Amino acid sequence: MTNHEFYMNLALENARAMKGQTDPNPLVGSVIVNDNRIVGIGTHLKAGEPHAEIHALRMAGDKAKGGTIYVTLEPCSHHGRTGPCAVAIVEAGIRKAVIATLDPNPLVAGNGVRILEEAGIEVTVGVMEEESRRMNEVFNKFIVTQRPFITMKAGSTLDGKIATHTADSKWITSAEARKDVHQLRNEYQAILVGVNTVIEDNPELTTRIPNGRNPIRVILDSTLRVPLESKVVTDGQAETWIFTAQHYDRDAREVLEDRGVSVYPTSGTERVDLDDVLRILGEQLVSSVLVEGGGSIHAAFLENKLVDKVEIYLAPKLIGGAKAPTFLEGTGIGLMRDAIELDNLVITKIGKDYKFTGYPNYNTEQNEGI
Amino acid sequence: MTNHEFYMNLALENARAMKGQTDPNPLVGSVIVNDNRIVGIGTHLKAGEPHAEIHALRMAGDKAKGGTIYVTLEPCSHHGRTGPCAVAIVEAGIRKAVIATLDPNPLVAGNGVRILEEAGIEVTVGVMEEESRRMNEVFNKFIVTQRPFITMKAGSTLDGKIATHTADSKWITSAEARKDVHQLRNEYQAILVGVNTVIEDNPELTTRIPNGRNPIRVILDSTLRVPLESKVVTDGQAETWIFTAQHYDRDAREVLEDRGVSVYPTSGTERVDLDDVLRILGEQLVSSVLVEGGGSIHAAFLENKLVDKVEIYLAPKLIGGAKAPTFLEGTGIGLMRDAIELDNLVITKIGKDYKFTGYPNYNTEQNEGI
Repeated sequence: MTNHEFYMNLALENARAMKGQTDPNPLVGSVIVNDNRIVGIGTHLKAGEPHAEIHALRMAGDKAKGGTIYVTLEPCSHHGRTGPCAVAIVEAGIRKAVIATLDPNPLVAGNGVRILEEAGIEVTVGVMEEESRRMNEVFNKFIVTQRPFITMKAGSTLDGKIATHTADSKWITSAEARKDVHQLRNEYQAILVGVNTVIEDNPELTTRIPNGRNPIRVILDSTLRVPLESKVVTDGQAETWIFTAQHYDRDAREVLEDRGVSVYPTSGTERVDLDDVLRILGEQLVSSVLVEGGGSIHAAFLENKLVDKVEIYLAPKLIGGAKAPTFLEGTGIGLMRDAIELDNLVITKIGKDYKFTGYPNYNTEQNEGI
Repeated sequence: MTNHEFYMNLALENARAMKGQTDPNPLVGSVIVNDNRIVGIGTHLKAGEPHAEIHALRMAGDKAKGGTIYVTLEPCSHHGRTGPCAVAIVEAGIRKAVIATLDPNPLVAGNGVRILEEAGIEVTVGVMEEESRRMNEVFNKFIVTQRPFITMKAGSTLDGKIATHTADSKWITSAEARKDVHQLRNEYQAILVGVNTVIEDNPELTTRIPNGRNPIRVILDSTLRVPLESKVVTDGQAETWIFTAQHYDRDAREVLEDRGVSVYPTSGTERVDLDDVLRILGEQLVSSVLVEGGGSIHAAFLENKLVDKVEIYLAPKLIGGAKAPTFLEGTGIGLMRDAIELDNLVITKIGKDYKFTGYPNYNTEQNEGI
C-alpha cells in the first residue's frame, strides 16, 4: 500500500461508516496530511450538514496550509450551505489534492478539479477509484440515470436449485444467511418479486432485524392475480406496489387500491414492461431495488441487462431434479462464449453458506452476441 | 498447533509427497523425536520396500531409544519383507507412540497398538486422524469394501448449468480449471460417463498433461448405442470398458469387442446396474473412479449414495435457461431437509473459477428420509 492508498483508505473507512445516514447524499470521506502527519479527518454525516472536506479543513485549522487533502469524491463546485468545497480547499492554502473519483454526474464532473488546478493546486485523480465508486454505487447510478440500482438476490443449492421438484424451499440456506438477507433488505428501498412467488410462498418480504426498515414491496403481476388474502396485501407491514400490464383486471385494481395497495399499469401487453417499472420507480425516488426472483423474473432482468449487481447465497448441499427450478430460468443464453461473467467477485462465508457478490459484465468481447 | 500436531503434520507432509508412487499400498509417514529434537524421519516410498517406521528407525539409530515415534497409520502387526513394524518399534526401545489413525481394515485394526502397549509403550491414537484418513481415502475404502472410491466431478456455471439450452458447453470453466481436471484424471484409475455424453460431445476422456497416465474409460450404455466412430472406440489412447444392461444389442457387442473394447453385461434390465458396475470394477482392482456425468448419471450415483466425494468447478458466470441442463438431474430429492450436505468442504480458486471439494453426508438426521 502506498502512502496515497493508506490515507485514501482511511478516508474511505470513515466514509463507509456513515452508510445509511447520508441519504440522499453520497458517502464521502477526507483526510488532510501535512509534513507526513495527519492533521485533519472529515466525513459527510448527514444531508444538509457540511461536506467531508469542510470538516477536515476545520480540524486542520492553520495546519491545512501547504498540506495535501485526500478526498474520496471530487470536491463540489456548487454553492451548498457551506459554499463550494473546491473554493474552501483553495482558501485554506492546500498545496496538493488526491481524489479517488470524479463526480458521477457527467454534467459537473471535472468542475471541482478545474477550480483547484486554476488555483495552482497539484491534483491527482484515480487513487482507489474502484473502491470509492463501489461505495456509492446506488447513488452513482441513480444521480446519472434516474433509474434505481438493481441487485439480483438468490439463495440456491450448489446445483443451482431454489426449490425441490416438489416445490419445497424451506430452507435452502442457513439461519445466518437468511439473517444476512434481512440485513440486505434493510439497505434497499424496494424489494421486487413476481406474482408467482407471492402465490406459492405467501412471503412477508419484510426486514426481520431489530430497528429494521421495511422496503417497499414491488410485485410484478401482469393480470392482477395476486391473492387478496396474501400477506403483502393484508399485513400492513410495508407499502405494496403492484406493476401490471395493459390487460389487467380492472375490478381487481379497484379492490386492491381500496386495501391500500398501489397499482401501476405499464405499457406491456402480455408481460409487465420492465423499463416502465424502473422509470416509474425512479420517478418515485426509489434509488435501489433488491430483485428476489423467482427464476423467470431474474432471467427477464438479466436478459434485458438491467441487473447491476448479484448476491447469490450458495448452500453447500445437493438436491438434484431435472424439474427442480433454478434461480435463473427463461430462455437463457445460447452460447457459452456469451455467458454473463461476474466482475469484482467477492465470496463471503456466512454460516455454512457462501455469498457470491459480483457485477454482471455485459460489455466484454465474449458476450457481444447477446 | 500442539507439538503432537507439529510432528504429525511433518509426517503427513512426507507421506503425501509420495502420492502416486506407493500403490497399491497407502501413503504413510513417520517422525521420531527424542529430547525435543527430531532424530528420524521416514516415509513409505514404494510397495515392496520398507514401511515408513523402518526408515525413520534406521535414521534415528541409537537415538530412537527412549524416544517418541509419530506415525500417520497404525504400525503393522504382520510379517512383511521387514517384519512387523510394531515389533521393530518395540525392539528399538521407543517409549511413546503417537498414531494418527488405526488400520482401516477392521479385521486387523488395533493389532499393532496391542503389540506396542503390551511392550509397555505409551500409545496415543487420533492425532490429526481426519487428515490421515483423507490422505488415504481411496485405499481405505477399497481395502475394506473391494469397491472403488467414487468422485463426482462437474464443471458448472454459478446457476448450476453444464450447457446452454442449445447444448453448447465449450467452455464453461477457464483453461486453468480444465487443466486441473486433467490433473484429477491422472490420479484416478477410471473415468466414467454415460453414453449420452459420448454421443453429444465425442470426448477423448484422456489426461492431457505431460507424462499423464490415462485412466480406463468406463461408459454406461444400456443398449450399446455407443457410436463406432466415437473417439473412445477408435483412438486407442486408453482402454474402454462398456457396461450394459440385459437387453443389449448382441451384434454391437461383437463389433465392439473386435475393436478392442471390453463389454460387461450387468443384471439391470432397463438400466445398467450400478452395484454390478462397482463390483466388477473392484474385481478388476480398479480402486478409484471419477464420474464425469452428465446430470442423470450423477443423480443415479448420488441417489444410490454411491458418491464418496465431489469436485464441483463453479465458473462465476450466468447463462440461465429453464431447459438448460444442470449437473444434477434425475428425479431429485423431495424435501429440502433431506438435501445432501457436503462435509469437510474446501473451496480452491483455480484461474477464474472455484472448485468445491467435499464429501456427501448421507447419514445426518436431516436426510433420514432419503
